[in-house]
Amino acid sequence: MVPMWTARGTGPVAPTVATPLRPVDHAAVRLSTTGWHGSWQERNRSATIPHVLDHLENGEAWTNLARLSGRSAAPFRGMVFTDSDVYKALEAVAWSCADQSDVAELSRAQALVELVAAAREDDGYVNSAVQARSDRGRWSDAQWGHELYCAGHLFQAAVAAARCGVLAELVTVGTDFADTAARELSGANEYLDGHPQVEMALVELYRVTGEQRYLELARRQLDLRGYGRLGPDRFGSQYFLDHVPPREAREATGHAVRQLYLLCGMVDVAVETGDAALLAAADRVWTDLFATKTYVTGAHGSRHRDEAIGDPYELPPDRAYAETCAAIASFQLNWRLLLATGERRFADEMEVALFNAIAVATSDTGTRFFYSNPLQVRSGHDGSNEDAPSGRLEWFTCACCPPNLARLVASLHDYLITTSATGAQIHHPFDGTAQLDLAGMPVTLELSTTYPAGGITRAAVSTGVTRDWELAVRVPAWCAATRVRVDGELLEVTPSEGYLRIVRSWHGTHELEIEFEMPVRCISAHHRVDAVRGCVALARGPVVYALEQTDVGEADIESPDIEDLELLSVGPPSADLHLPVTLAGPVRSARLYATEERAASDGTEIHASLVPYYSWGNRGPAAMRVWLPTAGSRHADHGRTP
Amino acid sequence: MVPMWTARGTGPVAPTVATPLRPVDHAAVRLSTTGWHGSWQERNRSATIPHVLDHLENGEAWTNLARLSGRSAAPFRGMVFTDSDVYKALEAVAWSCADQSDVAELSRAQALVELVAAAREDDGYVNSAVQARSDRGRWSDAQWGHELYCAGHLFQAAVAAARCGVLAELVTVGTDFADTAARELSGANEYLDGHPQVEMALVELYRVTGEQRYLELARRQLDLRGYGRLGPDRFGSQYFLDHVPPREAREATGHAVRQLYLLCGMVDVAVETGDAALLAAADRVWTDLFATKTYVTGAHGSRHRDEAIGDPYELPPDRAYAETCAAIASFQLNWRLLLATGERRFADEMEVALFNAIAVATSDTGTRFFYSNPLQVRSGHDGSNEDAPSGRLEWFTCACCPPNLARLVASLHDYLITTSATGAQIHHPFDGTAQLDLAGMPVTLELSTTYPAGGITRAAVSTGVTRDWELAVRVPAWCAATRVRVDGELLEVTPSEGYLRIVRSWHGTHELEIEFEMPVRCISAHHRVDAVRGCVALARGPVVYALEQTDVGEADIESPDIEDLELLSVGPPSADLHLPVTLAGPVRSARLYATEERAASDGTEIHASLVPYYSWGNRGPAAMRVWLPTAGSRHADHGRTP
Repeated sequence: MVPMWTARGTGPVAPTVATPLRPVDHAAVRLSTTGWHGSWQERNRSATIPHVLDHLENGEAWTNLARLSGRSAAPFRGMVFTDSDVYKALEAVAWSCADQSDVAELSRAQALVELVAAAREDDGYVNSAVQARSDRGRWSDAQWGHELYCAGHLFQAAVAAARCGVLAELVTVGTDFADTAARELSGANEYLDGHPQVEMALVELYRVTGEQRYLELARRQLDLRGYGRLGPDRFGSQYFLDHVPPREAREATGHAVRQLYLLCGMVDVAVETGDAALLAAADRVWTDLFATKTYVTGAHGSRHRDEAIGDPYELPPDRAYAETCAAIASFQLNWRLLLATGERRFADEMEVALFNAIAVATSDTGTRFFYSNPLQVRSGHDGSNEDAPSGRLEWFTCACCPPNLARLVASLHDYLITTSATGAQIHHPFDGTAQLDLAGMPVTLELSTTYPAGGITRAAVSTGVTRDWELAVRVPAWCAATRVRVDGELLEVTPSEGYLRIVRSWHGTHELEIEFEMPVRCISAHHRVDAVRGCVALARGPVVYALEQTDVGEADIESPDIEDLELLSVGPPSADLHLPVTLAGPVRSARLYATEERAASDGTEIHASLVPYYSWGNRGPAAMRVWLPTAGSRHADHGRTP
Repeated sequence: MVPMWTARGTGPVAPTVATPLRPVDHAAVRLSTTGWHGSWQERNRSATIPHVLDHLENGEAWTNLARLSGRSAAPFRGMVFTDSDVYKALEAVAWSCADQSDVAELSRAQALVELVAAAREDDGYVNSAVQARSDRGRWSDAQWGHELYCAGHLFQAAVAAARCGVLAELVTVGTDFADTAARELSGANEYLDGHPQVEMALVELYRVTGEQRYLELARRQLDLRGYGRLGPDRFGSQYFLDHVPPREAREATGHAVRQLYLLCGMVDVAVETGDAALLAAADRVWTDLFATKTYVTGAHGSRHRDEAIGDPYELPPDRAYAETCAAIASFQLNWRLLLATGERRFADEMEVALFNAIAVATSDTGTRFFYSNPLQVRSGHDGSNEDAPSGRLEWFTCACCPPNLARLVASLHDYLITTSATGAQIHHPFDGTAQLDLAGMPVTLELSTTYPAGGITRAAVSTGVTRDWELAVRVPAWCAATRVRVDGELLEVTPSEGYLRIVRSWHGTHELEIEFEMPVRCISAHHRVDAVRGCVALARGPVVYALEQTDVGEADIESPDIEDLELLSVGPPSADLHLPVTLAGPVRSARLYATEERAASDGTEIHASLVPYYSWGNRGPAAMRVWLPTAGSRHADHGRTP
């Protein structure tokens, strides 16, 4: 057995073949805790990860594994995939403790690794739900068993441990199980897991170990999919993404997280095997998803019943399911596609999701979470209802989201910068430093930014080598005008394929300043998005705004007072990104349906304040809305009637 | 034992105490098969009931009962409430065969009655799901067992049999079980059924038998409810309507059918016990429901996940759950409240539900059904998906709706006319005859109407008695102008409390003609109904219209062609009630979200035709929408931005 813990290196996603863009090492970027990204990562380290570990150590996730080594007498309880929550937490600790700084946390993680190790069967197989049942063997509940889903999260944790050089035993536990799975799920055994996830995990484990069998098993899962093996079930084959072979897929459909994890696996397999058709299929589904089935916050999934994506343009703000895990999966997918293609559109979607759909899921304390992330919540909710979430909760019966957030944020700095044959790319401005290696040339970037409050980013670029190379900075799709200065001197730079590209010798230390114009934008949805017809959403930079009940004084954002508000003016944001607005009101209708009635404002003004969507709900349960009705929408032209 | 089959008389709901309005006998009204109501009832008799019996006799509903008498070796399968489908079908046959005309159908029903009788335990208890399990006894799964729900449907079938003088054994089976339930569910046994239904059934059985114990058990179910006995479950206590005692309820919430059946039981108990506070509570919840949570089609329930009513003004047309059973329950509730109060608003809501939410659920063949009745279906569906219904299906895994329709339509003529101390009331115009007994005075009404195609209703009123009495005809809330003629002479009659009231001696035979003006109405929703902002629905008389893909020629009701249509003109309807419209198009947007873009028509015209909502989907799967976007809604005023 190769000692895997020597395979240190990158963060998540490290292709072994040449891709247009390359990730940097996990240790290469450090975030400043005073910046937007760094303060979140610090909150994740100091609050979210311990909170997640507390819940796992004291709940069914622990007892389900512990009973297998006789440490608990409790029966198996909860979701069949509670193991995966442990694995996600272990992955979070690995990414977070790569510098070995947090001894206490590593020690808690080590205890969990030992728990998993002790739960294993002789050949390395481990799944506490399957092992708890005497009536069912391995690989017997493809639809709902989540067996490879759990295994995949174990593999990803093992990959993080290997790359970070921590929790060595976890790497062995992961590869032992992967060896068994690769052996058993071959030949006649055509087990296909109902929840895609293992595909990307196996590719990553292949990347760390070089074991071709893992890549083969990943590809096999893709090849088995799409022929109705999983049976119809009540939600239909598309729920499991088993209605069409992945390479032939044209539409994003089914369970949102399954669809997005499947796309991640497709990209990973395509990249490692040079399968252009598979990559094209992923891109095709991506286009359908982002052109017709994505919330303005970057979230996915409009149906609660089957956690599904829904029809094209079916994007209700109130009943948005918008699962946190789907937003995380979207972020991971776009990172993969960005590396594989170098195209800006993927970095743009990462930004939208990160600053909105993902960031909203954690409270400002880091210890409360949204599972579902609606864009509108009506009044009358006390924050306790998972199905109409008006407040973040400490934990969930289905606890997939909090540990998923923990592992993503612990590796957040891995997703911001890349290198290429021509130079380095800053996709996402942040506060912190990056130590890059550009084909043997060491380069240091010291970045500071007003992002997302403002559009100014400064980079002190230092290198001792004299050689021309390109420093590229992404211009977000929302940005119409930019200014570039190097050492105080204004440069004429036109964005090329979405990036400001400055090619020069950066020998010595130079100050690059990039400014993005960042006006408030009134966003309208495509005319087929019926649910927000006649409404606008306000955004500034990457931040989508929300109107919270808390900020409209005596008025009521739902009652006739300002529901049908006319947007009179929008002011510049305050230091905490609150955005003053003047709204017209009140509007009054009486009956639920009427023939003659017209709702109209009485002309008075209401002074309110919008908050970043990601920060709503931190002041107690309150009605909220992202999409604001405009005056035009209520002056319906009823046409001529006979 | 009293021979119950002598208790012949009314149709559903027959208070034993004086109420403002009284139902007429089941045999008193006969529908003409050429009219709207009568042709539907005939289709129900000749197609729907046989179709329902076919499916029950050849499916798990039959085997689940048959195995208890050794006639089937199959294990219990399907929903735990398959018995109730049999009982609803038996009720349908009873109402349908009161005149003993259909011997074949009565014989099929008799075989089912014998099947149920043979399945019973010694004390008359019968529930095939409970009896199939050795690990659980009676009354042990209050949340999900549907034990009294099934019993209630048995009791209602027994009531119908008794009132119609058919299927005598069914009456005994019902009362035997009711006796056992009343004995066992008393004292310390505080079993509360998760699905309200039995309350109204027990009151009706009390009305037929005079057994006070049945009324007591009904009241007891109401009194036990609202204290969290049923536990929280994943959908919360309000799903079971167990979050607040019924008499204290202020809001319509939870599972739509459960809420509506509970309200029916509340009204029945209130009427029989003279409980004004309980009646007031039902009225309070009714007001909340119809003021804020009712679709323009009269449907209820906006959430698929828990079949729930949703928040106030949460009325998405596309994801409307709008279960057929909820519309039926609403019709039954409004009939109860109409009898109890005499107020027109209840008859109005019966009309809306009947001509739209209920009528849409059956195909023009009577053999295919909607379970969920959305007000918008996007393109791309082939009609096979229960979750996004674009076509009616033959049957359902959860088969509650088709037999529920069958029993309602078999007794449809019972819901049209009432009598009172002062005379007779025509609530719903129909083609047919009514033989009334007005305090000993026989009166014959021969009715013919153009309804719903037109607004003219003629009644030949015949009586041999000379005495002044009031013939009242409801003026629907949508009707702004009426004309009344008696024997050709125009009368000045102003509606009083919503009814045209003509008081005179009708001795001999006189022709009354009532005309309702019936223009096409453009209906707007309350400004808080976010999902249809900027849209109108068209209606004419009681009929709500829908635009089907089939009727827009080369255009596409979803694509940029005419999605954001401007309503240019509306013509008079054709003989088959199709309504010609001219729409503006096309409109084109490109991106899912945009800052600058405005969608606007290019000024061309599209000639299309609207169909009655109740008849959509009879020409194959097609996109459909009730709410039509207006031009105003896309010229959003984005306000001033900095």
